[in-house]
Amino acid sequence: MHHWSVFSLSLLLIGSCLCQYEPTWESIDSRPLPEWFDQAKFGIFIHWGVFSVPSYGSEWFWWYWQGRKIPSYVKFMEQNYPTGFTYADFAPQFQAEFFDPVEWVDIFASSGAKYIVLTTKHHEGFTLWDSKYSWPWNAVAVGPRRDLVDDIATALRTHSDLRLGLYHSLFEWFNPKFRADADNHFKTNVFPTTKSLPELYEIVNKFKPEVLWSDGDGDAPDSYWNSTGFLAWLYNESPVRDTVVTNDRWGYGSICKHGGYYTCSDRYNPGHLVKHKWENCLSIDQKSWGYRREAKLSDYLSIEKLIGNFVETVSCGGNLLLNVGPTHDGRIVPIFEERLRQMGQWLKVNGEAIYNSSAWRVQNDTATPGVWYTWNQKEKAIYAIFLSWPNDGYVVLNDPIVSASKTQVVLIGYQALSWESMSPTGLKVHLPQLPPSQMPCSWAWTLRLTGAM
Amino acid sequence: MHHWSVFSLSLLLIGSCLCQYEPTWESIDSRPLPEWFDQAKFGIFIHWGVFSVPSYGSEWFWWYWQGRKIPSYVKFMEQNYPTGFTYADFAPQFQAEFFDPVEWVDIFASSGAKYIVLTTKHHEGFTLWDSKYSWPWNAVAVGPRRDLVDDIATALRTHSDLRLGLYHSLFEWFNPKFRADADNHFKTNVFPTTKSLPELYEIVNKFKPEVLWSDGDGDAPDSYWNSTGFLAWLYNESPVRDTVVTNDRWGYGSICKHGGYYTCSDRYNPGHLVKHKWENCLSIDQKSWGYRREAKLSDYLSIEKLIGNFVETVSCGGNLLLNVGPTHDGRIVPIFEERLRQMGQWLKVNGEAIYNSSAWRVQNDTATPGVWYTWNQKEKAIYAIFLSWPNDGYVVLNDPIVSASKTQVVLIGYQALSWESMSPTGLKVHLPQLPPSQMPCSWAWTLRLTGAM
Amino acid sequence: MHHWSVFSLSLLLIGSCLCQYEPTWESIDSRPLPEWFDQAKFGIFIHWGVFSVPSYGSEWFWWYWQGRKIPSYVKFMEQNYPTGFTYADFAPQFQAEFFDPVEWVDIFASSGAKYIVLTTKHHEGFTLWDSKYSWPWNAVAVGPRRDLVDDIATALRTHSDLRLGLYHSLFEWFNPKFRADADNHFKTNVFPTTKSLPELYEIVNKFKPEVLWSDGDGDAPDSYWNSTGFLAWLYNESPVRDTVVTNDRWGYGSICKHGGYYTCSDRYNPGHLVKHKWENCLSIDQKSWGYRREAKLSDYLSIEKLIGNFVETVSCGGNLLLNVGPTHDGRIVPIFEERLRQMGQWLKVNGEAIYNSSAWRVQNDTATPGVWYTWNQKEKAIYAIFLSWPNDGYVVLNDPIVSASKTQVVLIGYQALSWESMSPTGLKVHLPQLPPSQMPCSWAWTLRLTGAM
Amino acid sequence: MHHWSVFSLSLLLIGSCLCQYEPTWESIDSRPLPEWFDQAKFGIFIHWGVFSVPSYGSEWFWWYWQGRKIPSYVKFMEQNYPTGFTYADFAPQFQAEFFDPVEWVDIFASSGAKYIVLTTKHHEGFTLWDSKYSWPWNAVAVGPRRDLVDDIATALRTHSDLRLGLYHSLFEWFNPKFRADADNHFKTNVFPTTKSLPELYEIVNKFKPEVLWSDGDGDAPDSYWNSTGFLAWLYNESPVRDTVVTNDRWGYGSICKHGGYYTCSDRYNPGHLVKHKWENCLSIDQKSWGYRREAKLSDYLSIEKLIGNFVETVSCGGNLLLNVGPTHDGRIVPIFEERLRQMGQWLKVNGEAIYNSSAWRVQNDTATPGVWYTWNQKEKAIYAIFLSWPNDGYVVLNDPIVSASKTQVVLIGYQALSWESMSPTGLKVHLPQLPPSQMPCSWAWTLRLTGAM
Repeated sequence: MHHWSVFSLSLLLIGSCLCQYEPTWESIDSRPLPEWFDQAKFGIFIHWGVFSVPSYGSEWFWWYWQGRKIPSYVKFMEQNYPTGFTYADFAPQFQAEFFDPVEWVDIFASSGAKYIVLTTKHHEGFTLWDSKYSWPWNAVAVGPRRDLVDDIATALRTHSDLRLGLYHSLFEWFNPKFRADADNHFKTNVFPTTKSLPELYEIVNKFKPEVLWSDGDGDAPDSYWNSTGFLAWLYNESPVRDTVVTNDRWGYGSICKHGGYYTCSDRYNPGHLVKHKWENCLSIDQKSWGYRREAKLSDYLSIEKLIGNFVETVSCGGNLLLNVGPTHDGRIVPIFEERLRQMGQWLKVNGEAIYNSSAWRVQNDTATPGVWYTWNQKEKAIYAIFLSWPNDGYVVLNDPIVSASKTQVVLIGYQALSWESMSPTGLKVHLPQLPPSQMPCSWAWTLRLTGAM
Repeated sequence: MHHWSVFSLSLLLIGSCLCQYEPTWESIDSRPLPEWFDQAKFGIFIHWGVFSVPSYGSEWFWWYWQGRKIPSYVKFMEQNYPTGFTYADFAPQFQAEFFDPVEWVDIFASSGAKYIVLTTKHHEGFTLWDSKYSWPWNAVAVGPRRDLVDDIATALRTHSDLRLGLYHSLFEWFNPKFRADADNHFKTNVFPTTKSLPELYEIVNKFKPEVLWSDGDGDAPDSYWNSTGFLAWLYNESPVRDTVVTNDRWGYGSICKHGGYYTCSDRYNPGHLVKHKWENCLSIDQKSWGYRREAKLSDYLSIEKLIGNFVETVSCGGNLLLNVGPTHDGRIVPIFEERLRQMGQWLKVNGEAIYNSSAWRVQNDTATPGVWYTWNQKEKAIYAIFLSWPNDGYVVLNDPIVSASKTQVVLIGYQALSWESMSPTGLKVHLPQLPPSQMPCSWAWTLRLTGAM
Repeated sequence: MHHWSVFSLSLLLIGSCLCQYEPTWESIDSRPLPEWFDQAKFGIFIHWGVFSVPSYGSEWFWWYWQGRKIPSYVKFMEQNYPTGFTYADFAPQFQAEFFDPVEWVDIFASSGAKYIVLTTKHHEGFTLWDSKYSWPWNAVAVGPRRDLVDDIATALRTHSDLRLGLYHSLFEWFNPKFRADADNHFKTNVFPTTKSLPELYEIVNKFKPEVLWSDGDGDAPDSYWNSTGFLAWLYNESPVRDTVVTNDRWGYGSICKHGGYYTCSDRYNPGHLVKHKWENCLSIDQKSWGYRREAKLSDYLSIEKLIGNFVETVSCGGNLLLNVGPTHDGRIVPIFEERLRQMGQWLKVNGEAIYNSSAWRVQNDTATPGVWYTWNQKEKAIYAIFLSWPNDGYVVLNDPIVSASKTQVVLIGYQALSWESMSPTGLKVHLPQLPPSQMPCSWAWTLRLTGAM
Repeated sequence: MHHWSVFSLSLLLIGSCLCQYEPTWESIDSRPLPEWFDQAKFGIFIHWGVFSVPSYGSEWFWWYWQGRKIPSYVKFMEQNYPTGFTYADFAPQFQAEFFDPVEWVDIFASSGAKYIVLTTKHHEGFTLWDSKYSWPWNAVAVGPRRDLVDDIATALRTHSDLRLGLYHSLFEWFNPKFRADADNHFKTNVFPTTKSLPELYEIVNKFKPEVLWSDGDGDAPDSYWNSTGFLAWLYNESPVRDTVVTNDRWGYGSICKHGGYYTCSDRYNPGHLVKHKWENCLSIDQKSWGYRREAKLSDYLSIEKLIGNFVETVSCGGNLLLNVGPTHDGRIVPIFEERLRQMGQWLKVNGEAIYNSSAWRVQNDTATPGVWYTWNQKEKAIYAIFLSWPNDGYVVLNDPIVSASKTQVVLIGYQALSWESMSPTGLKVHLPQLPPSQMPCSWAWTLRLTGAM
């Protein structure tokens, strides 16, 4: 025998295991979603990495520049960097000198979000934590000189209301181990066994995330990634086995089909009820997830649009994962801060229609456009959220079944309203005439119906 | 004679000259202010320079770091730059790679401003134009490699409604010629004769500004700066002699006293009528004129505050010069863009109460707080701008003298309103109850009174 | 089963194998040294890497700075780099913009060397070749953007007289995989199985070196490194199995004891005959192997000292591996070039006493200091090299056994000399009186004795 | 009067003045050369500036790149720097972090030189001293953060045997003030009155140089530069009026004709006696005065060539000004140090033939090539320096008139030699046969003849 001995990281995983879940999709998919996630409704997505240094175009900068060679990216590099500047050369400029995790978490908390999801490693392969398996291509060895994941996780723990989620890309565009496996049609698996899987175990064990947001299958099947094997461990044995939630991006073909909740496509927003729990990940900057210096004001979604999306998502059974892209020097720029705080202002008033709600029998009103319903089982309350304040002084709700004696209608943040029943169904709610300072909020308003069905 | 001949830049200034104004304050101060300036009411101030590279703390970065040695600045440098990094070392990083003057001017125009004032040279001495007298410490020789003043001036000319103003600092913190003159108690004048005055002639002749915003006397008297000599040239002979407007910062003791309009102190807002034309220069970022990366959302004035300041300023006879600080890479960040566009939305509705208006007999209502008046002589209209919409449905205006038969009251952007006269004076205006989408604007509302005094 | 499958790089090694050598030291050590190496006598060592960027102190810069925290290194960083600058931040500055491998090889060839040994990876872990196992911490992904090993190997192939040697460090100071194994007292072997061994296979297969110069056991035993396993493959199956030579640095305790030729310690020069083939690696800059900007002229060994060392080494059975440190921008500075060309000038004249020679019965003359012997078996010639030219016109050689009739003495590069035998042994050789331009060389002179024993 | 007052730097020049010299060439040229300069024979030229940062091609880098746009320079920038990188952007990298003026001066002193000439400002306009007139384009404001001229001057004062010389370029390639004057056919003189002349006064007053090495007339006449006015001040009133020496580069047409000693062209070496004192400025790197990274060993003059040039220069009445180019980080690289120390070794032996010598009746021997004469008036000694040691054991000197009884011939560093007179003139000197270690020196040898004419 003249080769080396078996690679035995498996030793690290020893422990007693009830092993409720088998490494098959059938078994994995059978696990019930931990309750907290559906109740949370709202999370913050954070795309941060070496791509935040050029902060041009997209977090896919590297691929667009050197993979697809899109002319605008090629030109950007030619005009601003020396010939032969490499993507890795950006890393030392990722200094995060203004990064204050406490301040970040304050902003996140002020938005009313209940969880965050941080890109611990995007397709570039650079790990924001001190990964043993990505050395020195990580944030402690080069650039920020700090474990950014640990910093954020630590700050987060002071907010009992915010849970930690970690995004992790399986594949890496330019990792030669991955490319060699790909060239072998994924018959070899050097890359997942020495890079992506060890990383996944590492972040789960070290940071104990309650969301594990997998991404980037690189067109490889889940068998290549050994996703079911990993998920079985995650669900059976990991330190977060009881509360962790995952998504559906665990290998070619698994998206919208296997795993935890569904993300389907980016900015997924079906507009109708989806039975399996799903998440709408949406970026405030409509054109990029990573920070993009050239973004104009018009590229940022207005608070009206954001709330509209949010309400629609929740009504249809989804969560909203709203994305911000911090800068390479560690800031969440004011336009993002403003949008997040505006979300928080709205939720402070209207949160009871959102958190802990379920989809109702009807998602949006069949007669009046822009009215979305949610249901609070515990309160037995129907919530009708109307996105624009009608000029004619009343809202018609076609779908609730009301009872003259039992049904009560309240404008949340104001008071009970008078209403009249409509024929054949529904009701007409009379809105008050309020001066601006007495309006409960500025962008969408909620009617709570009790004693209705 | 074994020294060199007389410095004869004066040759450049030859020409026929009616020479209405003498180089004395008495004569200079006698010049009437060109009309356009009082009519314009609203300008944009732009602080851009090498200080935009560290973009930390203040545009006074250099002085605070190496002059006053304020600990936070010293620490910022220690933590982020090598020992011995100099301020001049920042200049190569002033790349302005995203700078698009057409886009800037579009944003400025969208705000409703009628003029801009650009820092062509701040106290750091770096000229944004290709100055022969500041080589190679200028934007063409190092950093941006373009004449930024020319770029902006050229883009501006496509907007017939926007006039060019140039800010210029007389003194320079660290220029050894200035410091030597200062050490000589300004008995020598090497610095003004070889640097600041040649620069002033250069920018006036080259860019033909209609505002010349002088700053930074360095505690030297106007005789040192030869300010009256220069202003006599500016008013008698310069290419902009008919329309140019200047301010009052032309030497120790001249501020709020001599020159053109008064600026008095930064953020000057007296709250009462000032007879001599004045200007309130106000920065959206409350803590800095130059871009400051660490600014939080709460550091930026809200649109409500900005409009309040604006209305108060105009009512008291002033203009507002609202400041934005572009980034070293040439962007006006979205939070600034948002505020400027919000100003424009407001002015689109309420501009008739602002542009071409004068101060009225009374500045703010003596009975109702937050009501400010302007007067349009041509329309014979009194404008009463109320900053908050009252909850009780009416506005009391104590100061207009009304006539039941002649007086008409209109809510601008809506329609005529009913009113009743009050005793002993004034009137009570009944406001409509409007749903949000029918409000003429979101932040301050204007009543136009005609047939009143 | 909930862990991943066996790491199967061993698949790459499949092939038919006569397998003469077993993975034991006994077997490995039994392999005869390929002849060419002993005949070559002289190689060039090249220390090049990220350490060439700071080029201060030593190629151990990283360790001295951040491992041992030697004050001069810490201070160097404080004074010249921003706080928190990392070692990895140096890599982008490793640009090699002046690197011309053809020119390098010309210089190496001009020195008379017969092989070179290039640091493909020093203890810093940065690979000068495009290693799949060191991505992106390699010269193609960051910095030079070229496979420096391939460049040099390719240029070398045009010189039939020069062989390629590759230096490779087993351990890496700061690689967290290695450190984790070390913390486990080398009971785990994640590092060698996923990093150092795959690299070794990669460079042997790709570059086909004829010297494999291992270094840096990190205090781990050869069993941890699986050195005998690798060497068995190298000797049995690798593409260079017939000609490759290795050294003795393959694990704690192997140095000067197992493997191929002995290097023992750096600058090893025992001064007496060593039976096992050995190599004296010696740096022209006495204080560093990597380029060191602060080196003074006096730190560089003079050509007299270099030749003295060389002659002594060869006489005692060793090879000389003479080190140069190229700069980060890819140059071999003139002082190194000068020394190497001087070596070549000397070897052009005296090469017959060096190449293909063996140690003689006596190493240095027992009577006259500074006289060293070599032996050419084929020519049956004794060579006596004297390092200084005697003032008294003759050299006494005490050790050769001469015969008045048969013994001939020639000053190499000149002609036969007269001599007289001495009693009880030896001979006295009469030197000519030569003007400078007729001296065969400038620094050490060789007498060839034939017909002597 | 509406322009500024007369530029009155002339005030600085007030003082009592005997004013022996008038500001005319006739008067200036009549001044005798201070004695020390002819006695010194050997100086070190130092070209250091921002051009030492790219250190490619030539100290004329800027002009070749952006003035003449020579393809190799344009390509060098394209390949190694971002688009739009400016020359001024190099300045921050001029860090001089290894600069040790004491060490420099030790090296200079070891060479046997008696003066140095440092480029205080080359055509790039960057001043190595803290010039008030070149702010912030100087070494204190940007880059080294130290007054490099002051550093060197201070270190020099500890060597009583070394005098300070300062090189200063009148014109500046890209200074817009100079270019504007040039565009006016030098009818205006803004540039000399505000830049070059104030600088000259500044360096003379501050550093008290004993050589003022002017360069770069920019095709402008001396009247434009007011050279005679300045030189009259230098000779009459300046603090170095008694000992200062200048050269001949003071305006178009003055070179080789007016001023102090002649430099004529770069590397001037006429090969025959020139009556007016002259200087051969010669660079060790044959292709550049500034440090050039790409220089090969073969580009550096060998010590044999340097000594040959030196001897020829001195024999013909000149001084040698031997140039080295330090690096941007402040080092004199070992190959320069080696050449300088070799010069010193040679001068230690042969200095008596050089220092304080004069040109003799004959410069080089009319019969034997490579023999150069000097004359020491005080010792009444003729020195014959022969550049190569003859193979035949004697030197024939055709030109001395000898006397059998009086003439003595000594090989300097050895002892008296026997000789015989030749017919019709001259003598044949018998050289000893010396082993290498007894040769007085290695590269050129001197015979001292006394009692000869």
